[in-house]
Amino acid sequence: MKKINAPLEHLSIIAHLLRWTLIALPVALCTGSVVAVFLLLLDQVTAWRYAQPWLLYLLPLTGVLIVLLYRYAGKNTEAGNNLILEEIHEPGGGVPLRMAPLVLFTTLLTHLTGGSAGREGTAVQIGGSMAGWLARKLRLPRQDVRIILLTGIAAGFGAVFGTPLAGTLFALEVVYVGRLNYKALLPCLIAALLADVVCRAWGVHHTVYTLADHAALIDSGSFLHFNMLLLGKVIIAGTCFGLVSRFFSEAVHLVKDYSLRWIKAPLLIPVSGGLLVIGLSLLPGGASYLGLGVYNPDPAAVTLVSAFRPGGAAMFSWLWKIVFTAITLGTGFKGGEVTPLFFVGATLGYSLGVVLGVPVDLMAALGFVAVFAGAANTPVACVLMGAELFGSAGILYFGVACFTAYYFSGNTGIYTAQRLSRDKT
Amino acid sequence: MKKINAPLEHLSIIAHLLRWTLIALPVALCTGSVVAVFLLLLDQVTAWRYAQPWLLYLLPLTGVLIVLLYRYAGKNTEAGNNLILEEIHEPGGGVPLRMAPLVLFTTLLTHLTGGSAGREGTAVQIGGSMAGWLARKLRLPRQDVRIILLTGIAAGFGAVFGTPLAGTLFALEVVYVGRLNYKALLPCLIAALLADVVCRAWGVHHTVYTLADHAALIDSGSFLHFNMLLLGKVIIAGTCFGLVSRFFSEAVHLVKDYSLRWIKAPLLIPVSGGLLVIGLSLLPGGASYLGLGVYNPDPAAVTLVSAFRPGGAAMFSWLWKIVFTAITLGTGFKGGEVTPLFFVGATLGYSLGVVLGVPVDLMAALGFVAVFAGAANTPVACVLMGAELFGSAGILYFGVACFTAYYFSGNTGIYTAQRLSRDKT
Repeated sequence: MKKINAPLEHLSIIAHLLRWTLIALPVALCTGSVVAVFLLLLDQVTAWRYAQPWLLYLLPLTGVLIVLLYRYAGKNTEAGNNLILEEIHEPGGGVPLRMAPLVLFTTLLTHLTGGSAGREGTAVQIGGSMAGWLARKLRLPRQDVRIILLTGIAAGFGAVFGTPLAGTLFALEVVYVGRLNYKALLPCLIAALLADVVCRAWGVHHTVYTLADHAALIDSGSFLHFNMLLLGKVIIAGTCFGLVSRFFSEAVHLVKDYSLRWIKAPLLIPVSGGLLVIGLSLLPGGASYLGLGVYNPDPAAVTLVSAFRPGGAAMFSWLWKIVFTAITLGTGFKGGEVTPLFFVGATLGYSLGVVLGVPVDLMAALGFVAVFAGAANTPVACVLMGAELFGSAGILYFGVACFTAYYFSGNTGIYTAQRLSRDKT
Repeated sequence: MKKINAPLEHLSIIAHLLRWTLIALPVALCTGSVVAVFLLLLDQVTAWRYAQPWLLYLLPLTGVLIVLLYRYAGKNTEAGNNLILEEIHEPGGGVPLRMAPLVLFTTLLTHLTGGSAGREGTAVQIGGSMAGWLARKLRLPRQDVRIILLTGIAAGFGAVFGTPLAGTLFALEVVYVGRLNYKALLPCLIAALLADVVCRAWGVHHTVYTLADHAALIDSGSFLHFNMLLLGKVIIAGTCFGLVSRFFSEAVHLVKDYSLRWIKAPLLIPVSGGLLVIGLSLLPGGASYLGLGVYNPDPAAVTLVSAFRPGGAAMFSWLWKIVFTAITLGTGFKGGEVTPLFFVGATLGYSLGVVLGVPVDLMAALGFVAVFAGAANTPVACVLMGAELFGSAGILYFGVACFTAYYFSGNTGIYTAQRLSRDKT
């Protein structure tokens, strides 16, 4: 480009930024605050469930409640994240404000009674509904509705995981794979940063994952600044991460499709799902795969955190988590896919670390972001997330793992409304 | 997306990857090797210039030689990086193989006689011409010509700076701002990684920039994981980085336009440019701004490396480097803009660090990547480059600096053939 025009251009840049800072401010304040309330309540309901294990037996009941809530009060909000993506592609009916309280309440119900689900879907829907509401109040034009909805996604994602940079790139990448709306770059960054600040200011603490110092392993000390053998192993692992992320997406979609086809009474779908989850949780070790999976008072349980230490996961923990999550989300419970994807990735990384002879914490960290990269088709956001969460000593390995997983997840993904600018191959 | 089709899809992914690994392999081997030869020779000619300062007085003469070489042997290769970008937009005549030796030789001539230029342009053109040659030999279809040229860019950039991840994203981002060809993601990563390995295997050492440990500054230790005051300063600095990167692009274009308009005899253009550079270098401290600027035997000189330590740069070093580089590149000398942009960014960061009360090494690191992000319109590649070169403890600050600089550089850039999918504001 070579377009040397008036100094007025800078005024328009400043005006654009001021305008979007002003618009992103309320989106970020509301989203950060509501996400904070959500996360604090989520901790609470998870603690209650551990204290009162019988709550699990209410899972079929809460499933029915969730279905009824969406049927009588949900309007079109059942589509969740996909509704927000659709509204960005084709601004139309808007994202209703009721989406936020509905998804918040139903996610808490899911977690209170032990459903295996995440929290990013909830946070993104909170952000999207706040942004959609503001777009209507401000009567923004179509072009700007897109950007404000993107800021809502960035704010929700940035706040819920405490990773504003990844939140920004996630919003840009997730809508249309291969077309990044760079016009929304700074508005999204502002929203994600502010929402993160607000959320932490309410007293939310994010899980800190600490890796051992692998500098000697990562940098082979030869003429290279990296270790070729390790890199080869990461490519193998990346392929597995991609295949498993595809399997995850397909499993959720399949459970949804088959339960709709086989179970004619809609209320029986969550009942069957709930009963299945209860049954599976009674298997040895099965209780580890209930709920969010980040924390568990039982020191022998497999959690997202335990996968970072030797002996902290079983060889097929990842497969169990996929089964629990596909049943939970595929039969109508709420919460989102991302934390389960982190769990699947970290435990798969653990197993691959054992098989390939790589420290399990390093492989768990790579799987954590790479399985998500493959399932959400957001490779760049996930590399940045790796750097935000785990430091960048090994950023090259994060890149290799995420990009490989992105390829091997194929033309599929967890968000049905996502568009791909072209086939991956 | 929800497209659950045959297991054949995975075969097609594997076939795609194998095919592109086989294609990227020769691109990477040739590019990595030629870039290695180039970098080793560049070190040599720079050492000769320091040993024989009179070589500077040959600058007008080498300028004439460069113009004549391109006139009689250059065909359409004078357009350099822009020709490669054009060929990616509209595959047509192809990128001639002669581009590589021509740009290599003329860049060495420029640096031997003290012209202020870079090296990435040369590396990218080496990669592009290797890739273009292979595309013709393999009779690749248009769609694949695009991808192979992207692998050439990624290989050249990855090898010349030892940053394969940044090389990959640079290739994807630089062609069409806001449209990333994710199909080329893994081919580019493979090419950049291999070219980097090959280049280092030839004995090339990349400059290592070490920052002091700013963990306490970066992480304020409060409920936040970052320092709000520092973040505010980084936003101010990012704005300056963006404005200066715009000024840099405009300065190079202006010198080019005005010298064409005012100097009718084409051979007199490099002569005037050379004489101007000689004259300016005689000013006190002026010699610092000759050549690449990474290393200087004079311990009092300002270099890209000295800008990372207190007292290592003057308040307006960045302005001087822009003047020297705009004259050198605007009057027909060769080499590229990126290393001068690093120099401008690091020294501007130094000055802003002094003014804003931030450690100069941290600000120099931010300026290093952010001025380049603004000038090349490649914000994401530059964030990754920051993490690859300086570690990711402060990756959030790199994101803020690069994204802000990208905005404030306006709808302009150093590559005239680059396309922007829409205005920034």
